Amino acid sequence: MLKFNEAEFVAQTESLVALRPRIEEVVDRLHGEGYDNVLLVGAGGTYAQMWPYEHLARRASTLPVRAAVAAELVVSGDARLGERTVAVFTSVSGTTEDSLRAIEYCKGRGAHTIGFTGYPDSPVARSVDTALVSEPKAWPFDVQMLLFTLRLLCLRGEFEGYERLADELAALPRILVDVARRAEPVASDFAEAHKETDYHFLIGGGNLWGFTYLYSMCILEEMQWLRTTRVHSAEFFHGSLELLEEDTSVLLFQGEDETRALTDRAEAFARRVSKDVTVFDTRDYPLDGISPEFRGLLSPLVMDTVMDRVSKHLERVRDHSLDLRRYYRVMDY
Amino acid sequence: MLKFNEAEFVAQTESLVALRPRIEEVVDRLHGEGYDNVLLVGAGGTYAQMWPYEHLARRASTLPVRAAVAAELVVSGDARLGERTVAVFTSVSGTTEDSLRAIEYCKGRGAHTIGFTGYPDSPVARSVDTALVSEPKAWPFDVQMLLFTLRLLCLRGEFEGYERLADELAALPRILVDVARRAEPVASDFAEAHKETDYHFLIGGGNLWGFTYLYSMCILEEMQWLRTTRVHSAEFFHGSLELLEEDTSVLLFQGEDETRALTDRAEAFARRVSKDVTVFDTRDYPLDGISPEFRGLLSPLVMDTVMDRVSKHLERVRDHSLDLRRYYRVMDY
Repeated sequence: MLKFNEAEFVAQTESLVALRPRIEEVVDRLHGEGYDNVLLVGAGGTYAQMWPYEHLARRASTLPVRAAVAAELVVSGDARLGERTVAVFTSVSGTTEDSLRAIEYCKGRGAHTIGFTGYPDSPVARSVDTALVSEPKAWPFDVQMLLFTLRLLCLRGEFEGYERLADELAALPRILVDVARRAEPVASDFAEAHKETDYHFLIGGGNLWGFTYLYSMCILEEMQWLRTTRVHSAEFFHGSLELLEEDTSVLLFQGEDETRALTDRAEAFARRVSKDVTVFDTRDYPLDGISPEFRGLLSPLVMDTVMDRVSKHLERVRDHSLDLRRYYRVMDY
Repeated sequence: MLKFNEAEFVAQTESLVALRPRIEEVVDRLHGEGYDNVLLVGAGGTYAQMWPYEHLARRASTLPVRAAVAAELVVSGDARLGERTVAVFTSVSGTTEDSLRAIEYCKGRGAHTIGFTGYPDSPVARSVDTALVSEPKAWPFDVQMLLFTLRLLCLRGEFEGYERLADELAALPRILVDVARRAEPVASDFAEAHKETDYHFLIGGGNLWGFTYLYSMCILEEMQWLRTTRVHSAEFFHGSLELLEEDTSVLLFQGEDETRALTDRAEAFARRVSKDVTVFDTRDYPLDGISPEFRGLLSPLVMDTVMDRVSKHLERVRDHSLDLRRYYRVMDY
């Protein structure tokens, strides 16, 4: 597979799954001590990565759980933030400045801070009350957030099957390598067909809305300098649809939660106008060993693996490195 | 002023302000009976219009207040939705299907539903438990949402000065006509200079982030068929900034709340790259009779009035009617 280091990928994914006992220990302790609300804090990609877990909590729990933009939280505050708040942060490098400021802000208000990162000596790992460290560069953070959120809901009596799901996640490294392998030709074909495309229209919903935002902003815009619009599948009909034309490249991210029908509806409409509609659907991947009722929860993780293949092939056909930036961490601001 | 019916505008705005005693009566009754959480439900523009009031509640109150997408709420649910939920809806025409389904859904779970619309015999007005009706076609819903949210926070001891602010709002019709008049040349100049522009980059934060989304999706995309990207000023540096080029049209919506510095930072950066940065700033408008400490709360309303002038001039210079649709309510879906 193009630019896929299987050994490294497996080691990283294993290191995420291996965090299970530590995550359980932390959540169990928090549950024992008591808390009133949870903030899931991020910036850009790590903010978007929190959305599925706010979405999950909203459907299943009466606990206030909110995804927050780090920089906004620091200036706007949150009336619920206090000593009975649990604030969760993630950072691949452990150096994101917006997140570091938000960690200090939350600690200053007495919150218990938890940080997931790949570097034990990074500023994020050193700043938080509880650091949970995986292998370097491991991405995304869905395994950790799934274990954290579901353990928490399980202890509150709001989710059944935590133990079984957590057990099944042990097979993830193998499962995701299989997903990547199956996505490879799909990704290559998509990239070849869209070598010259300079605008993509992205649609997703449910627990894939965060990924839709992320893929639009942090991959296509930031890493490929391509213009995009991004719209939630429940919002598509309230404006953005008017942009579609026969040659508009439409990407739909389809998962397996209860919002599937909303994305189907957007797809059906898009196909009536555009001849260039691509659906990336997590149902196309077997995920051997994962019970049917848990598949939907894994959609963000599966989609990230699929679209990482697409990104690598876009990089190839467009001869535009995913690491190239003209401004971010290049210019001062 | 171009396509500005002053008499109608004044009558509509007066009808919003006139809802004050009814809104207070409703909120006071709810407060007396007790409730646990508030859902602010919308679709597209009316969803975006709820964001400032979720933002306001988040900063000032421990009460769970959430802006929800109508279509998503119906399929995903909300664990807090029940007999102690207050669900608020807005609809200009009173016929938005997504909202009607959500009203039924919320009523089915025992919530108390409140609807703001301009038509007493519309499906929305007839479906909700409490309908609060203004003049036809009155837009936006900020007056109603401000009075509703602040009265509620006031009764909870989380906002001071409600009476004073509500009194000051009586002058709104005159204030907003003055805003429109001052914005007219600005709007005309912007439109003339952007007659040929086919892509706009929109940035806003705080209580103007909802408006940023709305202006991007519901005006430029839906009504002008123009490509856009929209990004929160706190998120700008985490991806979208890489899209900027010397000739990129950047629109910044600047208000007067605590997130102002975040938008300033995005502006300073944008100006270093693009020669086509336009800042629409609510500070440019005097708002005679509004106390300085309340000005920030009115930013969404002021900005809507300013940008409505821009829309009318874009319609003129681009010879593209704001009422023209190729798909919405034209094709079936």
